[in-house]
Amino acid sequence: MDWHQIFAARNDRMKASEIRELLKLLDQPDIISFAGGIPDPDLFPAQAFQDAFSQALNPDTQATALQYSVSEGYAPLRDWIVGEMARLGIPCTRDNILITSGSQQALDYLGKLMLNVGDTALVGWPTYLGALGAFNAYEPRYDRLDPETNRSAADYAKAAGKGRVKFAYMSVDFANPTGRTLDAQMRERVIDLADELDIAVIEDAAYQSLRFEGEALAPVLAREIERKGSIDACRTIYCGSFSKTLAPGLRVGWMCGAQEVIDQVVLMKQAADLHSSTINQMAIATVANAQFDSHVATIKKAYRARRDRMLSALEAHMPEGVTWTRPEGGMFIWLELPTQINAADLLAQSLKTERVAFVPGHAFFADGSGTNTMRLSFSRTDEAGIDEGIARLGRLITAAV
Amino acid sequence: MDWHQIFAARNDRMKASEIRELLKLLDQPDIISFAGGIPDPDLFPAQAFQDAFSQALNPDTQATALQYSVSEGYAPLRDWIVGEMARLGIPCTRDNILITSGSQQALDYLGKLMLNVGDTALVGWPTYLGALGAFNAYEPRYDRLDPETNRSAADYAKAAGKGRVKFAYMSVDFANPTGRTLDAQMRERVIDLADELDIAVIEDAAYQSLRFEGEALAPVLAREIERKGSIDACRTIYCGSFSKTLAPGLRVGWMCGAQEVIDQVVLMKQAADLHSSTINQMAIATVANAQFDSHVATIKKAYRARRDRMLSALEAHMPEGVTWTRPEGGMFIWLELPTQINAADLLAQSLKTERVAFVPGHAFFADGSGTNTMRLSFSRTDEAGIDEGIARLGRLITAAV
Repeated sequence: MDWHQIFAARNDRMKASEIRELLKLLDQPDIISFAGGIPDPDLFPAQAFQDAFSQALNPDTQATALQYSVSEGYAPLRDWIVGEMARLGIPCTRDNILITSGSQQALDYLGKLMLNVGDTALVGWPTYLGALGAFNAYEPRYDRLDPETNRSAADYAKAAGKGRVKFAYMSVDFANPTGRTLDAQMRERVIDLADELDIAVIEDAAYQSLRFEGEALAPVLAREIERKGSIDACRTIYCGSFSKTLAPGLRVGWMCGAQEVIDQVVLMKQAADLHSSTINQMAIATVANAQFDSHVATIKKAYRARRDRMLSALEAHMPEGVTWTRPEGGMFIWLELPTQINAADLLAQSLKTERVAFVPGHAFFADGSGTNTMRLSFSRTDEAGIDEGIARLGRLITAAV
Repeated sequence: MDWHQIFAARNDRMKASEIRELLKLLDQPDIISFAGGIPDPDLFPAQAFQDAFSQALNPDTQATALQYSVSEGYAPLRDWIVGEMARLGIPCTRDNILITSGSQQALDYLGKLMLNVGDTALVGWPTYLGALGAFNAYEPRYDRLDPETNRSAADYAKAAGKGRVKFAYMSVDFANPTGRTLDAQMRERVIDLADELDIAVIEDAAYQSLRFEGEALAPVLAREIERKGSIDACRTIYCGSFSKTLAPGLRVGWMCGAQEVIDQVVLMKQAADLHSSTINQMAIATVANAQFDSHVATIKKAYRARRDRMLSALEAHMPEGVTWTRPEGGMFIWLELPTQINAADLLAQSLKTERVAFVPGHAFFADGSGTNTMRLSFSRTDEAGIDEGIARLGRLITAAV
């Protein structure tokens, strides 16, 4: 039988991702991997989760932990998040919070909420590959969000053709893949542009907690609340995650925004998977309440040392003509190679002769450009591995230049 | 701001469900609830889960349990399911199995996989409300699947208009909401019809394991493999769940079908939520390996006694003109009232004066008919509660007839 007669048109946009194929390589022990935005499992608060799951399954709460629960999410976890949002300058209530199965699910739901076929999503060039993957299912067009230019709202609207611009998506702090942080002026400009275009803003804050140095910047949503007085008057939807701070395997993240948006996405979630795992939400709430700040301090210290080591190694081993970002937090450094070097070819060669993995950058560009770029993650490799891996990569790139 | 300018058209099809609103009432302790397809939490294997989570978080496996994992699902769990499928007459391999976050997510993904706007889904009149909810996001038309009639494939195809019939969806054993089981002849006819129409079949087997009596019927997928020789040549996709057998709070279910379908849905899942909770899949695998059969025997005994009690109570308390199904398993009995009685009005009155909850049947009809029907669940109320609740309902209905 020919399944292509039965599959919907959206499947033409859903292809295997390079990150996914690369993840399979991580099982090979001799590979030094700078691929994947993956936390170091040695840093997981495993004993705290052992205690938290045990507590959730005690006789008083086991019936709750194992049972169906409401689509909005576990109330004590939503309440913890309300407190965290307040600390970031985002006053809100429980009704502004929806628990999602990781922030990846928040991106999927927001694409589903807003995109008709042919509508336009504004994204960075480059942007988070997984956001493009999530949105692709709803068959949008992409246009380049670049607040540093003076491109007018009218020009964005015109470029959208028959569809409508629906949202601007941004990873704001130590962005995946570049490690860059959007500065205060650019954050304000994005709100201006969104107001002019009457579109939503999706603020992907997956790495927000992982700042190693420098002063924290107020989230876009916090700035918009400053302007408009209340979260319910705002067009920015903030997406948070416990995957980079506590543990990704539980699949718990959240969405914070105007109640009108949250209410509609709750209906969407109910229809799509009823709710996120009850027991996992309880365990995350317990661990977050007990040690979020102290645990985040621990992992930041470890990741900072690795970032420092990777920056030193790049300085030592990369030839002239290669440039890279200096992230103030997060997990990623972004390299630009001389334009004639194709990073995908380089990866194939690297895996064969150097046994070092990274992610070629062009997958992060909605237009497929950026063939001379690459993403390096420093989160999952120890300092010795970073030295060795960057030395090997430097050798390879030096030979290619 | 006017969010309706930004929301996609599909949102017009996504409304709050009555079951959802009813679930909120279950928190009121004086309500006797026959609403919701909810397992009795006293029957959860809580100690087994306590041990399983503790085991997953031991030093050897905690890094795996808390980490990202592949979109296909945890291999040992997929292998357990392969064994379970073989027992049901469905020979397959791990590559035919995808783990989903409950079988609700399988329905969402299959709608997303197959439905373009305006395509037709064939469903029963009535059918599972949550299936309509999941499919609605992809804006299909519905047509009535009724294998007992001789309606021709050509007629189904013609009724689809500009779209295409994409699949037939059925809850096959002790169906939600009717409690009815599709007999062998009808199962074969559905395969015939699907072959003629060149469409998929979605076999919702959420209640399959809960047979109290009578002989188990081979699944539709097993019958199609008999005809065609291999699962990879089949158009039926089987959706299973641990929610009714072990525990729903972990959100673990599965999809079993041709590898070409599974491969495409894996890409879809990767883009939508990366993967289902790693630790929950490990815990389910441990509990299923240790005690699936013995635990299912325990809950079947309890639910069987409740079904018997509810059937006796209906016999004793319902007035003439009310008819109901006699399910051989599952959780539901379906009532038809005299046509002049509106079950939604009856519910409003029942909650006010009798404090008994049930689900009015019309929500299960894609065309909104069935206003004189209602679904009663016997799974979550003990025998005394069943007697009392049905007596009260009988009084109310007797007064209304």
